[in-house]
Amino acid sequence: MRYYEDIELNKPQRFGSKQVTREEVIDFASKYDPQPFHLSDEIAAQTHFGRISASGWHTASMVMRMVVDYMSSGEGQAGLGSPGVDELRWVKPVYPGDTLSCETEMVEKRRSRNRPEMGITKSKLTCFNQHGEVVMTYIANGLIRTRDPGGVD
Amino acid sequence: MRYYEDIELNKPQRFGSKQVTREEVIDFASKYDPQPFHLSDEIAAQTHFGRISASGWHTASMVMRMVVDYMSSGEGQAGLGSPGVDELRWVKPVYPGDTLSCETEMVEKRRSRNRPEMGITKSKLTCFNQHGEVVMTYIANGLIRTRDPGGVD
Repeated sequence: MRYYEDIELNKPQRFGSKQVTREEVIDFASKYDPQPFHLSDEIAAQTHFGRISASGWHTASMVMRMVVDYMSSGEGQAGLGSPGVDELRWVKPVYPGDTLSCETEMVEKRRSRNRPEMGITKSKLTCFNQHGEVVMTYIANGLIRTRDPGGVD
Repeated sequence: MRYYEDIELNKPQRFGSKQVTREEVIDFASKYDPQPFHLSDEIAAQTHFGRISASGWHTASMVMRMVVDYMSSGEGQAGLGSPGVDELRWVKPVYPGDTLSCETEMVEKRRSRNRPEMGITKSKLTCFNQHGEVVMTYIANGLIRTRDPGGVD
């Protein structure tokens, strides 16, 4: 199990491969983001998207699935959940037929002052399409158990 | 149609009502966030969640649906999409059986220097449960057409 003390900063890690299907894009948009340009190629053709693209929240959700699969594939991490995300940016449209992958890099870590049993982390997440173009980025805030609550960095 | 010039700052607007079902929470988590505490009451009981709760990305997606329904229910807005979201915070768990609603308030607007046909906005979104507790907040960045590209504020 990886604890706070095991986290190394500035070591980018690549993971994930997710094929985006037209059926899934339309299914997600119908439920959660039924803006016409996510549902109709004709309407999307009149916007800068050009054709149906995935809801930004769908992209974030597909990335979450890759993150969860990646986290559970290794030795495991003593994670305590996430209080939130900063600077979520939808940089380029995600289209049906795209294949998404991710890179994550821990950029900050500190021990909690009030709760020495946990550490607070910031990691930068980048999602790419099959052309290597960045389609989405965010900074994830994380909480993780310390192995030694009395330790100092 | 509402344009950049029509946006009023600091006028909170309430909207939306979304019943969160156990079936939908598990369906979303199975697809996009299969952390065990989103899928099993037994495992969730060993965490601070206590029982199954919605993925944070599911909550964000349910909120997006309320936003889209609200935007399309009125006179319509000359929106040009969103480049992203800041300070997304999952404040409290969302449980099956909860009823969510939203408040939004425009907190900043300015004309784009490079593209006078559009304005740039920041709005604060707050999602509540049926007890009036805040469950999620974010700051949405928005782009909206100007009625008069030559105008000044």
